[in-house]
This record gives sequence, structure tokens and C-alpha cells, in this order.
Amino acid sequence: MSATRLFTEADLSAGTEAELTEAQAHYLRHVMRRPDGSPLLLFNGRDGEWAAELALRGKKAAAARVSERTRPQVVEPDLWLCFAPIKRARIDYVAEKATELGVTVLQPVLTQHTAVERVNVGRLRANAVEAAEQTERLSVPEVRTPVDLMRLLGEWPAGRRLLMCDETGGGPPIAGALAGLDDAARAAPWAIVIGPEGGFASAELTALRRMKDVTAVGLGPRILRADTAALAALACWQALVGDWRQPTPRLSSDYRSSRGAV
Amino acid sequence: MSATRLFTEADLSAGTEAELTEAQAHYLRHVMRRPDGSPLLLFNGRDGEWAAELALRGKKAAAARVSERTRPQVVEPDLWLCFAPIKRARIDYVAEKATELGVTVLQPVLTQHTAVERVNVGRLRANAVEAAEQTERLSVPEVRTPVDLMRLLGEWPAGRRLLMCDETGGGPPIAGALAGLDDAARAAPWAIVIGPEGGFASAELTALRRMKDVTAVGLGPRILRADTAALAALACWQALVGDWRQPTPRLSSDYRSSRGAV
Repeated sequence: MSATRLFTEADLSAGTEAELTEAQAHYLRHVMRRPDGSPLLLFNGRDGEWAAELALRGKKAAAARVSERTRPQVVEPDLWLCFAPIKRARIDYVAEKATELGVTVLQPVLTQHTAVERVNVGRLRANAVEAAEQTERLSVPEVRTPVDLMRLLGEWPAGRRLLMCDETGGGPPIAGALAGLDDAARAAPWAIVIGPEGGFASAELTALRRMKDVTAVGLGPRILRADTAALAALACWQALVGDWRQPTPRLSSDYRSSRGAV
Repeated sequence: MSATRLFTEADLSAGTEAELTEAQAHYLRHVMRRPDGSPLLLFNGRDGEWAAELALRGKKAAAARVSERTRPQVVEPDLWLCFAPIKRARIDYVAEKATELGVTVLQPVLTQHTAVERVNVGRLRANAVEAAEQTERLSVPEVRTPVDLMRLLGEWPAGRRLLMCDETGGGPPIAGALAGLDDAARAAPWAIVIGPEGGFASAELTALRRMKDVTAVGLGPRILRADTAALAALACWQALVGDWRQPTPRLSSDYRSSRGAV
């Protein structure tokens, strides 16, 4: 039986017991119908990935008996995705795909032309957790509450570079812009900023272009939806600046979990 | 009133009339409630984009009076996406995003570990048409009927290069592999080949690696779902080899259609 891979807030070390949430206990008991002692893989974003055994408790609860570490924690690039909320199916998709593509922070931003104002942060976080569990990631991106774009730019952290996808056109090609970065820029924390479907307002474009460490790029001759632009920019950034520049490790099948192929 | 952008099979030139399909007529009459004479933008993948006027016919039919060309047809990179069918929502998404990212052919491939055998080619084509209409693309990818991977490789067209995303790990980084291509390779037709969620069978991996013009690459340390890998590889290919290497044209707002921001 393949191990079920779960994210936990608990600290993980050999011999400890990690309480599972009610939702996790329900999933293992009633959806997966896993018996006591079933194999688990746990990660918390700090201690790497650990093999564990399911320990059923009473009628509803469950815990995990942690045995040995299967993967060490790895340092991931510090990459924010700042995106204007879009309608439900597409924003869920952005949370899922951005998690697979390695963002560390999902920051919804409200802009003048943002169509969607309400953001279900809890649901975005659930999508991010599920994507991390299913795709062997060792961490879960932080999902932040929506903030107005101008306020976000006004409080922008010193040294964090912006990759701005300029849907008004005229931006230099993304590959050339990223390939030409110096070592200091490559080593810096980054944020990818994607506009709403309606595009940035001119005041917002001006504010973005005035930022100290902004790199404005174009994503080709075809117009991309906001969600497509976000994923395309993330993939190009990881390939040219991020951790896709290292050869990919050859995965042992032990690392493939029962939810890894969903 | 902004123009509604529609794909048509008809030839387009000044002064001609293009019949609209029953579905297009219904959409314009009853969904968009467009009156006779409403502005349209038409493209057919051959003649560029043309301004036209809606001409209502009787109770159900509609045609378009074609007036002037708004954009010339552009030559796009010759890029196939060969992907194993995945469950409905994800395969629809692949068809939509691959269209935005500029593929010319969507080729479903059946592999030993392909979970989904049935593919609704008509629905995939409808998704591709809608994505092209909504994102200002001047062409629609051809959606082919599913074919067995080994047969596809056996009949592989001479000179078409393969970009193989190797989910077993150990592949060289995609950016380095694509940036290192010579001019002949860059000018060649290409295909991106993505495996099923279950991964390629070993015989399939061997056959792929034996292909003459194959470039096997890795997509970073995190495992990507098949649909994520397809979109990430497409974005990296367009950025490093395809038509994202040219500066993006600054779009006139005239080109933004009423369906462009859906």
C-alpha cells in the first residue's frame, strides 16, 4: 500500500507523534479507508519529509507515529506571486499551479480594474496544501489576505525585485531580460506581478515602472489570460533564475505517494 | 460597443459575406443580444483579422459583412503538443492554455499508463476555438484524434524535433538545453511530449530516448502534474526558442474584443 502524503503543522522528528486534523482523520478513515498502522509521509515545511504510521484514536481522531526521515528539507527560491483575484475556478487553478511551480507566497492584490473583490483565503490555502501534498513539495506557500496594489507597492520590502508582466505590450522578451540578470539580482528575493483581466490602470502602470528593482517583460505576441500569464512567468523564472537551473534529482519510487498521481 | 471576435472557416476579404454557424448566430442573438450591424472581428487562420458587421438573417441565421483587415496573418512557430489524455477538467484546461501559448497541433497520445482512454476531440477543439477567440490569436490549433505513442514515434516526421519532459528525473535543466540549441534546431519544427500521470513505461522511455532529434529535459525539483508540465514546457520553449523572443507588439485597444477579457 502506497503511503498517503500529508502536510502537518506539527514538529517532526523520530519517535514523536503528530496529531492529525479532523479533516485528515476523516480522509484517511472514511475516504481512503486506511487501517491502523497504514504508511504515511508527513512534511511541515521545516523538518523535511518523514515516514510515519497511522494511529487511529477512538471513533474520529487520528495521529501519526513518526519513524524516519525520507527527505531533507531543501531551501527554495524566495518568490512571491502577486496576482489580481479572478473568478473562482481560475483562482483555484492559480493557487494549485503556483504551488507546483514553487512560489513561497501567494499575494492577492486589488487593482482599479480588478473584477473580483472577495477572495476566499482559506480555500486558496486548502488548494495550496493539496497541491503540495500531491506533488511531493516539502513546503506550502503562504496565502496572504488581499491588499491594494498601491499600498503593497508603497510598503514594498527593500531588495525584493519585481518581475512585471506588461500586458500593454512593448515589454522586452522575458528570456533575454532574465538571462541578462547579474548575480546579485539572481540571488535576490523576487515577486512576479500579474495584472487583472482588465489590465493595470495607467496610474498603477506608472507606479510599477517607478519601482526601484522592477523588470518589465513581455510574454509574446498572443494575449494571455491573467492565470496563463502567471503560470508562464513562473515557469520561465524558475527555468532561468530559480531552482530549475539545477539538474532534477532522480526520484526513488518510494517518494511517490498515493496522492502524487491524482 | 466592443467588437465580438469569432473564428470562421470562411475565406475573408473586403466586401465578402461570411456565413456564421448556428451556434455563433445563437450566441450573438440570444446570449450577447447584438442587434443587426453590430461590430465583429473575424479570423480564419489564413487571412488575418477582419472587421465585419453582424447581418441577422430571418429568425435564426446570421452572417458577417466583412469590411477591412485589422491585422495581417502572422506565421507562428510550428509546435505540436503531444500529451496523454487526463481527466476532463484538466484536459479542457490544457487545450485552452496550449492555445494561448501558441501550439499549432494538439495530439492526444495513448500510453501504457494512460488512465483516460476516451477523448472528446470535438470538445477539445471547441475549447481551442474559444481560447483563440478570447485571446486575440489569429489561428486555432489543429486537434488530432488520439494515437498510440509507439505508433506516433514509429511514423515520426523527419526533421521534427522532440522536447521530452522526463518526469523520472535526471534530465538536464530546460533553460540550458534550449538556450544551447544551434540555429538549425531553432528553425526546425518541434513537438513537446508530456507523459501520463503514471509516467511513461520503460519501453516508451527507451523508444523516446532513441529518437533522432530528441531533447530530454527536467522541469525542476518539484513533481509537476502532467497539465502543469505541459504548460511550463510550452512557456519555456516559446520564451527560449519560439516567438516570445521578439518584443511584444504594443496592442491598440481596437484589438481588444468583448470576449478578450473573459
